[in-house]
Amino acid sequence: MAKTVTTLADGRELIYFDAGAVAPPHTAVDRRPLDRSAPASEVRLDPATGAWVTIAAHRQARTYHPPADECPLCPSRDGRLSEIPEADYQVAVFENRFPSLAGAPGAGSSSAGSPSVGSPLAASPPAASPGGEAPDADPLRTARPGDGRCEVVCFTADHDVSFADLDEARVRLVLDAWTDRTAELSALPGVEQVYCFENRGVEIGVTLAHPHGQIYALPFTAPRTARMVEQARRHREATGRNLFEDLLAAERADGARVVTAGEHWTAFVPFAARWPYEVHLYPNRRVADLTGLTEDERAEFPGVYLDLLRRFDGLFGTPQAPGRTPYISAWHQAPAHDGGELALHLELFTIRRAADKLKYLAGVESGMDAFVNDIAPETAARRLRETAPRTAAS
Amino acid sequence: MAKTVTTLADGRELIYFDAGAVAPPHTAVDRRPLDRSAPASEVRLDPATGAWVTIAAHRQARTYHPPADECPLCPSRDGRLSEIPEADYQVAVFENRFPSLAGAPGAGSSSAGSPSVGSPLAASPPAASPGGEAPDADPLRTARPGDGRCEVVCFTADHDVSFADLDEARVRLVLDAWTDRTAELSALPGVEQVYCFENRGVEIGVTLAHPHGQIYALPFTAPRTARMVEQARRHREATGRNLFEDLLAAERADGARVVTAGEHWTAFVPFAARWPYEVHLYPNRRVADLTGLTEDERAEFPGVYLDLLRRFDGLFGTPQAPGRTPYISAWHQAPAHDGGELALHLELFTIRRAADKLKYLAGVESGMDAFVNDIAPETAARRLRETAPRTAAS
Repeated sequence: MAKTVTTLADGRELIYFDAGAVAPPHTAVDRRPLDRSAPASEVRLDPATGAWVTIAAHRQARTYHPPADECPLCPSRDGRLSEIPEADYQVAVFENRFPSLAGAPGAGSSSAGSPSVGSPLAASPPAASPGGEAPDADPLRTARPGDGRCEVVCFTADHDVSFADLDEARVRLVLDAWTDRTAELSALPGVEQVYCFENRGVEIGVTLAHPHGQIYALPFTAPRTARMVEQARRHREATGRNLFEDLLAAERADGARVVTAGEHWTAFVPFAARWPYEVHLYPNRRVADLTGLTEDERAEFPGVYLDLLRRFDGLFGTPQAPGRTPYISAWHQAPAHDGGELALHLELFTIRRAADKLKYLAGVESGMDAFVNDIAPETAARRLRETAPRTAAS
Repeated sequence: MAKTVTTLADGRELIYFDAGAVAPPHTAVDRRPLDRSAPASEVRLDPATGAWVTIAAHRQARTYHPPADECPLCPSRDGRLSEIPEADYQVAVFENRFPSLAGAPGAGSSSAGSPSVGSPLAASPPAASPGGEAPDADPLRTARPGDGRCEVVCFTADHDVSFADLDEARVRLVLDAWTDRTAELSALPGVEQVYCFENRGVEIGVTLAHPHGQIYALPFTAPRTARMVEQARRHREATGRNLFEDLLAAERADGARVVTAGEHWTAFVPFAARWPYEVHLYPNRRVADLTGLTEDERAEFPGVYLDLLRRFDGLFGTPQAPGRTPYISAWHQAPAHDGGELALHLELFTIRRAADKLKYLAGVESGMDAFVNDIAPETAARRLRETAPRTAAS
């Protein structure tokens, strides 16, 4: 993997990732008349639940379903200028123009002063904010600047395909790009967790059709992660063992919910799945984050992950876009400062519960966080095992 | 308020609520040839997060956007038989035909044997399941029968109105019905929490247009509630005071996020609001649940709540259905067995962030429970204060 770092007209970073040891020259310059924007966001701690919420008022103006010939993620060609100056690329990562989190995480901050926990344990405010101001006086109103970083990951220059259509070499390059960004962003002062994910499908609310994912470098530990860290801590206290290793071993031994297993990876529907079709993909050897994977584990990942995505596309018998299965794919990585127990894994799920029906989050889920799942996890696993993987060509 | 209890053809309970001390006769009989269904659901504890999830596979077949002339919530008239045998009614409550939770909560159960906590504290399984079986051997796979009860609350016989169109007397009757159901369902063995809520709008996923809400009698404490209980416990330890009383006092003193305040109720946008427009409505005097409200508090509620709903409808300038603002309205009540600190309040929020845009829960929210809100809470409060309440007639 070769990496070329450059900047866009407004100073945002753009990084090209190319397969192989040597990158082709990336000399194209961003000629757009862009002003540097200085979006101000804030993270606030909800005293009633202990969860961090990001307030990003400037994002109301963000790009929303542009026509295909104005896609900002396509290469710049034929006089049309996009976010990516080159006329072609393999994988490109750049700072989001409308970020939820931005600023210079760590300019003047110390790790002791950053909000480090988003769990119910976070009721006590940190002693000082990243900017070095006085300690918060009011534990009911803990707020911080929304320092962090939001990046866009373009998986291919081809506007009309989906991640599931990529070949294994390209998926490996994306994995290497995710890994690089995890290492780089984790090292920024103030960053507590690096979150790589993909939203696919208008049903999920995706506003840009070009195949892409996102990376959030968060100045707090995400609420879901904080709960996992806490559960793992309790499990360690109770058993002396790691929760995620025990979970994976139990699923592999049982088998009823396993969807696919390679030499280095295992995919299963979790015992208490929240979504109609939900698969968790773990490396068989516990690592904290993407940077811990070995070459063998990296080499096997593309085949296993593409198989899962193509099974998702096969579920409802509609392989061609726009009828492909909408999904969220979320890499769970250990937070920077209390992540010793968390195991790297990917959570892949769809909101589609039938060919013509979506799962909505209404009063029970959004009001109480109490999920009701219409499909038994064992049934979902069986259907995924029995579903033929489908690609755009099949 | 007068209450008439009867049963439907398949044995489900139907309750008419009428204003005044004496109910009109409710003698109509359900003549539909319904078989008693025995839906089997299960609640499972997610070992990775400590949250209870309900698995209700039978619900895939539930009624989905029926035409208006087949509405099951309209009265039975002109030879058309619905869920409500009478030709007219004021407020009617009946057991959901497609419940997520059902069975006889408490038939043979004891409170000690029921799952009582849905928080990260719940890693230890209860000693015995409600059915009296042996203790769970495997803490990674804690499951229970989905005992509980799901009820539907019809707010009016008029198919074509919305809650915001009701008059204050009808809202008072609905409040009394919610209160009655809270008292009755809380008393059932095995029920840990009674949750009254309304989903409004196809955007939320509502599949029946008739104005109605729902009540869930849960065999666990909802995850969101469990976190609130835990935060309140920590606040008590740290300060000796009640978290919700402190929160309400701080919002009333600040005022920047207060939307409206009566003599007995205060509505404010929370400091760390998750949703574009989100309002929490508290009685000024802390009570654990609806049964604790005084007559004066009950009398003031309809005016305050209708004002809020009508402001929501005024937000986007489209008062007529189907352009009315979609919302979720959720009563938070103290759980049965660890609720001493939780304060009754209503959380009202919309997923609409602009006249033509919805807030989707994608990778950041659904993947990590990390909400990003595009509208500052202080801005949302100001807009709600400045918005003229609108009704269908205005």
